[in-house]
Amino acid sequence: MADRDISQAVIRRLPRYYRYLGELVDDEIERISSGELSDKMNVTASQIRQDLNNFGGFGQQGYGYNVKYLYNEIGKILGLDNIHNIVIVGAGKLGMAIANFPSFNNRGFITKALFDINKDVIGSNVHGAPVLHIDALVKFINENDIDIAVLTVPRQGADEVTSLLLKSNIKAIWNFTNKDLVVPENVSVENVHLLDSLMQLSYTITSR
Amino acid sequence: MADRDISQAVIRRLPRYYRYLGELVDDEIERISSGELSDKMNVTASQIRQDLNNFGGFGQQGYGYNVKYLYNEIGKILGLDNIHNIVIVGAGKLGMAIANFPSFNNRGFITKALFDINKDVIGSNVHGAPVLHIDALVKFINENDIDIAVLTVPRQGADEVTSLLLKSNIKAIWNFTNKDLVVPENVSVENVHLLDSLMQLSYTITSR
Repeated sequence: MADRDISQAVIRRLPRYYRYLGELVDDEIERISSGELSDKMNVTASQIRQDLNNFGGFGQQGYGYNVKYLYNEIGKILGLDNIHNIVIVGAGKLGMAIANFPSFNNRGFITKALFDINKDVIGSNVHGAPVLHIDALVKFINENDIDIAVLTVPRQGADEVTSLLLKSNIKAIWNFTNKDLVVPENVSVENVHLLDSLMQLSYTITSR
Repeated sequence: MADRDISQAVIRRLPRYYRYLGELVDDEIERISSGELSDKMNVTASQIRQDLNNFGGFGQQGYGYNVKYLYNEIGKILGLDNIHNIVIVGAGKLGMAIANFPSFNNRGFITKALFDINKDVIGSNVHGAPVLHIDALVKFINENDIDIAVLTVPRQGADEVTSLLLKSNIKAIWNFTNKDLVVPENVSVENVHLLDSLMQLSYTITSR
């Protein structure tokens, strides 16, 4: 599939295009030129044309882009036309917060269950998703067509939970543990290193 | 200051160096060669030498790096030798989760207060940090030497809260709202676009 050749930089911009186009859809704007989109997104117009040409263009010269069409097409490229079933491993405050994000649900990321070892939370549920004991994790993933595991355990538990996940059919790990995971090629990992991000902010303040 | 010339890519790697060196310090390892560090971090040894040379090297040829010293020096570069006072705007589940991260506290990022408009949470407190009404935000920032505001309000509130923050002496905004903020040059913004990150994961699964 052509996507293989598409640079990470382009892929990282796609969700942002999707986000902006979603706002235009909400504002009932039907067409937009790459120039207008570039002003709005603070990316050059040629950059936008290049990026979208990776996926076959979508624009007619001089007519700009059909907003709704482009929004839906980028959504498809991002796989948002499919439902993605999620489990959250680590039902602490962060795990609970993620399970509660309506914007994830709205985009088809459905939290099916949370997992923990803490008896105080096991048996409860979050928006109908049960909190289960981690012993049930692998079986649950394989039997409930789970794509994505969200890792919100303390970093000391990261490797143990990861090796557990690798015993299942999980396709992707969304990693909040601030630990770099070692996984085989067929498992995707996206890291959210919150502390790193906060340190970069500290750096920019300090280096002024 | 030299930092001006240092590329974003290097700066983005610094917290990761700091994280790995912290693990080595915990393991009481005193010296490490750029080669060993590169194996551990999955970055080339020459990359590591280049990166650290931006800050004056730290290594003696053939002797490797003094782990504790390098850890502390990178900590200083990242501004972690200073306390950073934080406010969290949006005392929902995510705001509460961030206020509860011990690893932030341990690195000198101290949550001084949370702000919200929801009467149900105003008056409560999180680890001793009070939840206050947003009307008190600007005054609190200026009177309590606050560096960083964490933005965890719903995205519809992002612009309003940002313009409020810009009336204060805030130095940096850690933005979780999935909306790109418009701020003057003297205010740093670090975005954590959780939904974008999740969409990239969806893309990688889909494009297989």
